[in-house]
Amino acid sequence: MALALEEAQAAASRGEVPVGAVLLGPDGELLAKAGNEVRANNDPTAHAERLVLTRAAQKHGTSFLTDCDLWVTLEPCAMCAGAISLARIRRLYFGAEDSKGGAVLYGPRLFSQPTCHHRPEVYSGFQESEASELLRSFFAARRS
Amino acid sequence: MALALEEAQAAASRGEVPVGAVLLGPDGELLAKAGNEVRANNDPTAHAERLVLTRAAQKHGTSFLTDCDLWVTLEPCAMCAGAISLARIRRLYFGAEDSKGGAVLYGPRLFSQPTCHHRPEVYSGFQESEASELLRSFFAARRS
Repeated sequence: MALALEEAQAAASRGEVPVGAVLLGPDGELLAKAGNEVRANNDPTAHAERLVLTRAAQKHGTSFLTDCDLWVTLEPCAMCAGAISLARIRRLYFGAEDSKGGAVLYGPRLFSQPTCHHRPEVYSGFQESEASELLRSFFAARRS
Repeated sequence: MALALEEAQAAASRGEVPVGAVLLGPDGELLAKAGNEVRANNDPTAHAERLVLTRAAQKHGTSFLTDCDLWVTLEPCAMCAGAISLARIRRLYFGAEDSKGGAVLYGPRLFSQPTCHHRPEVYSGFQESEASELLRSFFAARRS
């Protein structure tokens, strides 16, 4: 999670919403890391989680990331939770909960839907306060 | 929808699940078109809808596609419906319903969730039989 937080901090310094993600392979090896790149890429789908899934799959030479684990600083949104399921991620570890935009514990609770075809194991609360504080200070600075 | 169906047919001929999408700008101009490229790109997130959103936004130079309309041959999944909301698409037109993997009329019904921050207008049933038939024959051929 430390590495995901570093990616989130780097995203903030680029003016992006500070969320970072890391994808690890079956033996814990680093496959991809990214922060949000929505502004940099002019891409509404360039969330950190979506980017590491795409990049790791391309590196791996397969569209399935079975036995891979995703670490992300914030609870994934519906788009990212959907992508996590499509990629068949083994375990999802996230930091802060997101009651407004999250789709795992909140909102549509995608992995609990009967039509969800692959559910990762989900663990939350990792360095939650650091992840939340990054987001809080980012948005406070933009409002001031 | 004819153009989206052409993209779906082209996807099938590449061995991809035959779904096609087209993104139109505020005045009906073509911004992007794509079929699924999951296999070609080794990218679990390379659904037709996600690709046209990314490509149109990059072309447009903004991550918001307000006032743009998306045409797609199949009801979007959770990932794509989430991306459609993030991109602030104005109207979504789709062909066939997808009771197993759709996230608009079925499953999580994402646009009806209280935490969905942007809902497009949704219209369905456009050339539904052609869109369904493409999918049916694609999967039948792979099972035989």
